[in-house]
Amino acid sequence: MIHARFPGRLVMLGFGSIGQGVLPLILRHIEIPKERITIVTAEERGRDVAEEYGIRFVVEAATRENYRDLLAPLLRRGDFLLNLSVDVSSVALMELCQELDVLYLDTVVEPWTGGYTDPALTPSQRSNYAMRETAIALRERARGGPTSVTAHGANPGLVSHFVKQALLDIARDTGTPVATPPPAADRAAWARIAEGLGVKVIHIAERDTQVADRPKKPGEFVNTWSVDGFVGEGCQPAELGWGSHEKALPADGHRHGFGCDAAIYLMRPGASTRVRTWTPLEGPFHGFLITHNESISLADYYTLRDAGGRVLYRPTAHYAYHPCDDAVLSVHELAGKNWEMQAEKRLMTDEITGGMDELGVLLMGHAKGAYWYGSRLTIGEARKLVPHNNATSLQVTVAVLAGVIWAMENPRRGVVESDEIDHARVLEICRPYLGELVGAYSDWTPLQDRARLFPEELDRDDPWQFANFRVT
Amino acid sequence: MIHARFPGRLVMLGFGSIGQGVLPLILRHIEIPKERITIVTAEERGRDVAEEYGIRFVVEAATRENYRDLLAPLLRRGDFLLNLSVDVSSVALMELCQELDVLYLDTVVEPWTGGYTDPALTPSQRSNYAMRETAIALRERARGGPTSVTAHGANPGLVSHFVKQALLDIARDTGTPVATPPPAADRAAWARIAEGLGVKVIHIAERDTQVADRPKKPGEFVNTWSVDGFVGEGCQPAELGWGSHEKALPADGHRHGFGCDAAIYLMRPGASTRVRTWTPLEGPFHGFLITHNESISLADYYTLRDAGGRVLYRPTAHYAYHPCDDAVLSVHELAGKNWEMQAEKRLMTDEITGGMDELGVLLMGHAKGAYWYGSRLTIGEARKLVPHNNATSLQVTVAVLAGVIWAMENPRRGVVESDEIDHARVLEICRPYLGELVGAYSDWTPLQDRARLFPEELDRDDPWQFANFRVT
Ligand SMILES: NC(=O)c1ccc[n+]([C@@H]2O[C@H](COP(=O)([O-])OP(=O)(O)OC[C@H]3O[C@@H](n4cnc5c(N)ncnc54)[C@H](O)[C@@H]3O)[C@@H](O)[C@H]2O)c1
Ligand SMILES: NC(=O)c1ccc[n+]([C@@H]2O[C@H](COP(=O)([O-])OP(=O)(O)OC[C@H]3O[C@@H](n4cnc5c(N)ncnc54)[C@H](O)[C@@H]3O)[C@@H](O)[C@H]2O)c1
Repeated sequence: MIHARFPGRLVMLGFGSIGQGVLPLILRHIEIPKERITIVTAEERGRDVAEEYGIRFVVEAATRENYRDLLAPLLRRGDFLLNLSVDVSSVALMELCQELDVLYLDTVVEPWTGGYTDPALTPSQRSNYAMRETAIALRERARGGPTSVTAHGANPGLVSHFVKQALLDIARDTGTPVATPPPAADRAAWARIAEGLGVKVIHIAERDTQVADRPKKPGEFVNTWSVDGFVGEGCQPAELGWGSHEKALPADGHRHGFGCDAAIYLMRPGASTRVRTWTPLEGPFHGFLITHNESISLADYYTLRDAGGRVLYRPTAHYAYHPCDDAVLSVHELAGKNWEMQAEKRLMTDEITGGMDELGVLLMGHAKGAYWYGSRLTIGEARKLVPHNNATSLQVTVAVLAGVIWAMENPRRGVVESDEIDHARVLEICRPYLGELVGAYSDWTPLQDRARLFPEELDRDDPWQFANFRVT
Repeated sequence: MIHARFPGRLVMLGFGSIGQGVLPLILRHIEIPKERITIVTAEERGRDVAEEYGIRFVVEAATRENYRDLLAPLLRRGDFLLNLSVDVSSVALMELCQELDVLYLDTVVEPWTGGYTDPALTPSQRSNYAMRETAIALRERARGGPTSVTAHGANPGLVSHFVKQALLDIARDTGTPVATPPPAADRAAWARIAEGLGVKVIHIAERDTQVADRPKKPGEFVNTWSVDGFVGEGCQPAELGWGSHEKALPADGHRHGFGCDAAIYLMRPGASTRVRTWTPLEGPFHGFLITHNESISLADYYTLRDAGGRVLYRPTAHYAYHPCDDAVLSVHELAGKNWEMQAEKRLMTDEITGGMDELGVLLMGHAKGAYWYGSRLTIGEARKLVPHNNATSLQVTVAVLAGVIWAMENPRRGVVESDEIDHARVLEICRPYLGELVGAYSDWTPLQDRARLFPEELDRDDPWQFANFRVT
């Protein structure tokens, strides 16, 4: 089914697991002549896939020095730059697109290469909070300009729409249905819904159970999506949107002292920080508190302030990620080497023999306790649905597709975050590709089964305090 | 080659991975008529192996109530009880053996079933420190009685002999060679050697890289040796021999207030406690600080006191265990379920496709920094050497064999710990089965590569403080 007809040209920057996975979706759902698409990427990887679809394939890495000369000749007013690369500054590309009047989408606010692990930068400067601030700083200038969708993959991205759907579901199931969902642009109205329901904590709760036909080797980092992407964010400080119900900043918690102030960071890498969370199929588990754009954007979006600007309500929001088992082992090995990257990387694709990605949002603290809403996509279904995808990538690529379509349908919105995009439209486009879309209530809290063998410091008065979730 | 001729009868209690693995070694190196051997075990598992060797196989679990009636009829003066079971009290069996004048060996001081995780007991009461105290409390009464070897497997067990060999190697390589190694019974002489060399910390540093042809399933605990044994000790408090150089007790550290006082425990399970360590092949890695008998016995053995009993010297000693990757995942899953055991268990045997057990002792703080001495045994070698073993079990079973032979050769020693056994004799028996026996120096310290991306609280004045090793 064709969702959009696009008369311009499309440049795809980067053609790794996400680029290769989204191409067949674009060709299936957007009417655009193949010869108007160009792939620009840093390596030969994926050339076979580009050739399979007859798409022009240019191997040249974008750098701080050459990106303008590399990309400007390929882009005219009304064209689209789809950034699925690593190591290229999203903000630089967004500025270029505003200047050239070109539509834009990326799945993460990425710095120039090394930006995640530059020891010359403070942890605050290396945070996603800081990256996001640089992206949303373009908002004013871009008002009325070409649409630039920032950070719209699965998470960040799709999960913002899951949160809205989850809020509507909880409202319905607790006797306070929302007759007409507010438009995405009405931030305050959505924040009032969350506050009214009593949502205190939002986890992006993900359990990837995909396994392969070969074990991880020593000295090999294995993952179901970008190894560089995961290691990069894993070495950033752990970050979380900091809710108004939280009683005390963690001992290693810090505010940034600039920007929206919706989030804090911990003085340690997210890949060494674990939190308790829950998904319907896995049950309780420990996830990594990897920093993500959505932890901050969700907390910011759902903030209510009084007339004086004082925060009245904000949920705590963060990622609680159980990557595939081989990635858990890879992180364990990486930590053991003090974050010195393994010599080998492997992005699991054809060797996957089973498993699924159970990716959703867990809203906690409301009248029904905890509610998880999300996608259960098995590797088998993913392969059947779209070539060149695994379960993890398809959840991302379909969200990229939906974001691209939404931008084409809404081409003059300037810089927009996922939360500002119509969730119903995105879910409509994504639904056929998400396997089972499931909503499930649970009485799980992070206090469940605690302190059985050893005393633990717990806040029994409020299960939803971050201190209760954290694994120490 | 026959090491010993045994005229008595041998009862093997428990016939899991260690029991099955040691049987061919016993039959190969000890002259004993097969019909004098009886296996008593709790389940059918291993019957095929017993039948293969023509050994009597009795399925009946020993319990607090029946153990005397079950075992006494099988044992007469001069016989041998080899305890390789789980869930049976070692102390109860040792007492029985003293009474019946029967030789005895086990590989761990085991409590009756549930003793590791009985919430009615305090963490101190559930510790290996407490278990060991109950075992060595028999010493006086057993003096001159039949030899009862307590906790003599690979670790505890073999590693005590590795420590002695390592001390002699370091002495040789630092220009203070030990002309005649003191007898094992001369505890103080050995402690003076360790003190003289400046050994501050001893790790049992183990990296098991064995992998299988199938991935761990969700809800399955996988290990290369007893799953019950590992989970049991993993849920005990983390424990370590507490060295005289340590400046401050950890915030969660506790003394027991009774017994030898050589060790402390942390108020948390060892399976959730990680430490930095090093082996020659793996390099730096994070191991689990699983409690082990040898952490306490080594610290106790190598303690020097002044005339008033004040401690002058003691090394810190503990386990730093990287089990096979599937076990790391199993522990991660188990922790996520708040130590509620998985429904399925799998002890990896025939499905192992590669890897080795790199098991040794890491002596640190001396003039040459760090010295690792130990065994590198691959699964391929292990299989070639002895049937019904993997690399992990063979390091244990050959140490069991050596302990049994030593007991037969020294039948009137009463209760003895590994450190009190002649290391040269044990290593002589074990050497052919340990793959490569390797000694390697390293300039590694736990300060290496630290605090690159984030500030860390480090004691830069003394790298060998426990606080520097601990992963927080
Ligand atoms: N929001 C989400 O849900 C989500 C999920 C997965 C991935 N991502 C992000 O999407 C991006 C791509 O992920 P992936 O799994 O495809 O990564 P990948 O590692 O598989 O591929 C990265 C691609 O970028 C290219 N590249 C690297 N440096 C470049 C440069 N200087 N110029 C041009 N191209 C360059 C590489 O050649 C490769 O084609 C990453 O930034 C990742 O963090 C987001
Ligand atoms: N010191 C070391 O290096 C070392 C190494 C590995 C194992 N171990 C110890 O050796 C023991 C055996 O290890 P494994 O890997 O063979 O364990 P396993 O789980 O494979 O086998 C345990 C055996 O004990 C039997 N058993 C259980 N309950 C019993 C009962 N009540 N009465 C009689 N038999 C009973 C089981 O049937 C089984 O045959 C464990 O205590 C383990 O901790 C020590």
